[in-house]
Amino acid sequence: MSGALSPDFGHADSVITVDIGAIVENWRYLDSLSGPRTETAGVVKANAYGLGAARVAPALAKAGCRTFFVMSLDEAVALRRALTDSGHDDRRILALGGCHAGQEAAFRESRITPVINSLEQLQRWRDTARVTAGGGGAALHLDTGMTRLGLDPEETAWLLRRIEDGEEPLAGIDVELVMSHLAAGEDLADKTSDRQLASFARLCAALPDIPASLANSGGTLRGGGFHMALNRPGIALYGLHPAGLDTTGDQSDQAASLYPAVTWQARILQRRTAAAGDRVGYNGTHQLRRDSHIFTLGVGYADGYPRSLGNLATVTIAGMAAPVIGRVSMDSITIDVTDLDQARLAAASHAEILGAGYALARMAGDAGTIGYEILTQLGQRPARRYVNC
Amino acid sequence: MSGALSPDFGHADSVITVDIGAIVENWRYLDSLSGPRTETAGVVKANAYGLGAARVAPALAKAGCRTFFVMSLDEAVALRRALTDSGHDDRRILALGGCHAGQEAAFRESRITPVINSLEQLQRWRDTARVTAGGGGAALHLDTGMTRLGLDPEETAWLLRRIEDGEEPLAGIDVELVMSHLAAGEDLADKTSDRQLASFARLCAALPDIPASLANSGGTLRGGGFHMALNRPGIALYGLHPAGLDTTGDQSDQAASLYPAVTWQARILQRRTAAAGDRVGYNGTHQLRRDSHIFTLGVGYADGYPRSLGNLATVTIAGMAAPVIGRVSMDSITIDVTDLDQARLAAASHAEILGAGYALARMAGDAGTIGYEILTQLGQRPARRYVNC
Repeated sequence: MSGALSPDFGHADSVITVDIGAIVENWRYLDSLSGPRTETAGVVKANAYGLGAARVAPALAKAGCRTFFVMSLDEAVALRRALTDSGHDDRRILALGGCHAGQEAAFRESRITPVINSLEQLQRWRDTARVTAGGGGAALHLDTGMTRLGLDPEETAWLLRRIEDGEEPLAGIDVELVMSHLAAGEDLADKTSDRQLASFARLCAALPDIPASLANSGGTLRGGGFHMALNRPGIALYGLHPAGLDTTGDQSDQAASLYPAVTWQARILQRRTAAAGDRVGYNGTHQLRRDSHIFTLGVGYADGYPRSLGNLATVTIAGMAAPVIGRVSMDSITIDVTDLDQARLAAASHAEILGAGYALARMAGDAGTIGYEILTQLGQRPARRYVNC
Repeated sequence: MSGALSPDFGHADSVITVDIGAIVENWRYLDSLSGPRTETAGVVKANAYGLGAARVAPALAKAGCRTFFVMSLDEAVALRRALTDSGHDDRRILALGGCHAGQEAAFRESRITPVINSLEQLQRWRDTARVTAGGGGAALHLDTGMTRLGLDPEETAWLLRRIEDGEEPLAGIDVELVMSHLAAGEDLADKTSDRQLASFARLCAALPDIPASLANSGGTLRGGGFHMALNRPGIALYGLHPAGLDTTGDQSDQAASLYPAVTWQARILQRRTAAAGDRVGYNGTHQLRRDSHIFTLGVGYADGYPRSLGNLATVTIAGMAAPVIGRVSMDSITIDVTDLDQARLAAASHAEILGAGYALARMAGDAGTIGYEILTQLGQRPARRYVNC
């Protein structure tokens, strides 16, 4: 599960190592939390949270994952190709953003199941199902408190009234799944999840015989009633507990059961000295109090290293911690290595900027954001290496 | 210069329109600021600040730009290919990160000029120049106060002493350029730039007959002594004044002379209602005070829309401004359209999230960062459209 080998940077200045085996183990762990009647899907939207859906999804499929969630048709079509090319063409792909006007034929051609978020989408999918041979499989998203996607309460009420009245508003559609989404699934102190569970259970009772899904990563880790026919963890697959740094008690144990999936290493571009009083980086936000040894590393905000980490983050070099000083530049950062063992430094070619010594949750906390944003914002410029495939 | 047409989203949920003509016009404007003895290069590192170096650089080359700056060898090799493919193989490419051990042959094969940042790099480039046919062209970076890249003062002093002593530490290398980098070029109130200019002028006097370069965008816009043999604007090419929102007086006039290069539009995924008291988005950070109309748009932080814009940003829809409410999700945002003309909304298919109605400098200010980070963090998921090519 370790990706902390010394990398071959080649023509690049930083390397992101993605531990596919860790992601597979995380899926197995999350799957083990639910009973045999609960399927565990894999959420691989946003290019598998920035890590590469074309690599992650086939590995999960091989491990037994049968259902995948993406956001857009673009993502769905690319994923269908990756699953077909890897011999997993029978896996199911759901597009959370829904099928938009004009996309119906492409959905059916690539066998993508739209998640229907509104009555307009429902009506259009029914209408086109009637005139095409591709079938009418769909999922139905009912909002229970996120106020973002899914039929709003008015639309849901209209739908349920028609069903109560003996009409068949879903006729012509094979509704494979009814789902809702938790607004604060990771926050055990927030009662919103319990209210959403109660609301969703009431709605499901009015829609019998349709498999139901409520649990994202937070719901999957909560267990109990949140486990329905299908769980759909996302962030936890990639080794980050959805509560981030706020893990205590049971959540802390769960966080320890998830393997980090990413290590990021940056080349030492330059070793230099600077004098007491010198200022470092743009706008001189760090002033040296002593004569110093400074390394410049080949990673910056254009690579996805958050600019907000300037003067805050830590990197690991030859097993030692060093602080980032000055602002994060577009293409580089500067670290203070004055206090470090110079003999060990002499042999170092790179520093680890994300990994065992400085974990994703800590980086996100220091950057004032969440690990989800850091992963999905990893840039295209760093080289990618996949291990434990 | 307008990219605000109604886009064809196709399979994507958002479209970034890059106005190549605007970038070319910005280069011409920046070039017009200096005299005929000053060359204006183009900085296209970080994939042309996120906008696509393979599209931007050939257009600038066609307009007359002869020298380009990138960061890494990876970027340089890709740019050489793009320039060759577009019939501009004679243009010069400099790699700011320097040539690292083992990269010497690749630099020469693609005719990349390394920017030498240390005596170690200088010695290695000299040594390999002796044994290869590829020549020894290089630039020399002398640090004058950035404390990041370039020979540090100790190394620079050593080099100048050897030259004074009649030795030839640069023999075997064709030094095409000597450069330094401004730490606060955009900040007219910061005297650092004047000190750097004085320091660099002293160093240049000891290195006669080598063309010199100090001006980034900030230096190019300052003019005067900052204009030497070569200016190398970056961010201003892409339509953003380096001082961001802090433009007053002359800087304000300059900012008005730069054409914005990016428009970003997002699909309306869903139109919905919500009731007074409902909470919106993750962790319910926005609570509705009245029954509301809400649109969900197909852009989120995985697309590069900063998560820090939650509850802060504005979008433009059918020519009207609407606030982002709730947190930014990975794949979507929610906007409140309750106060907007519902007839005009009915005909809308998308919203403009970055453009004339909400400019890059303002977005950056609201997000607590700089426009540079927003441009270079634009994601891969949005579709790209190039206009005015």
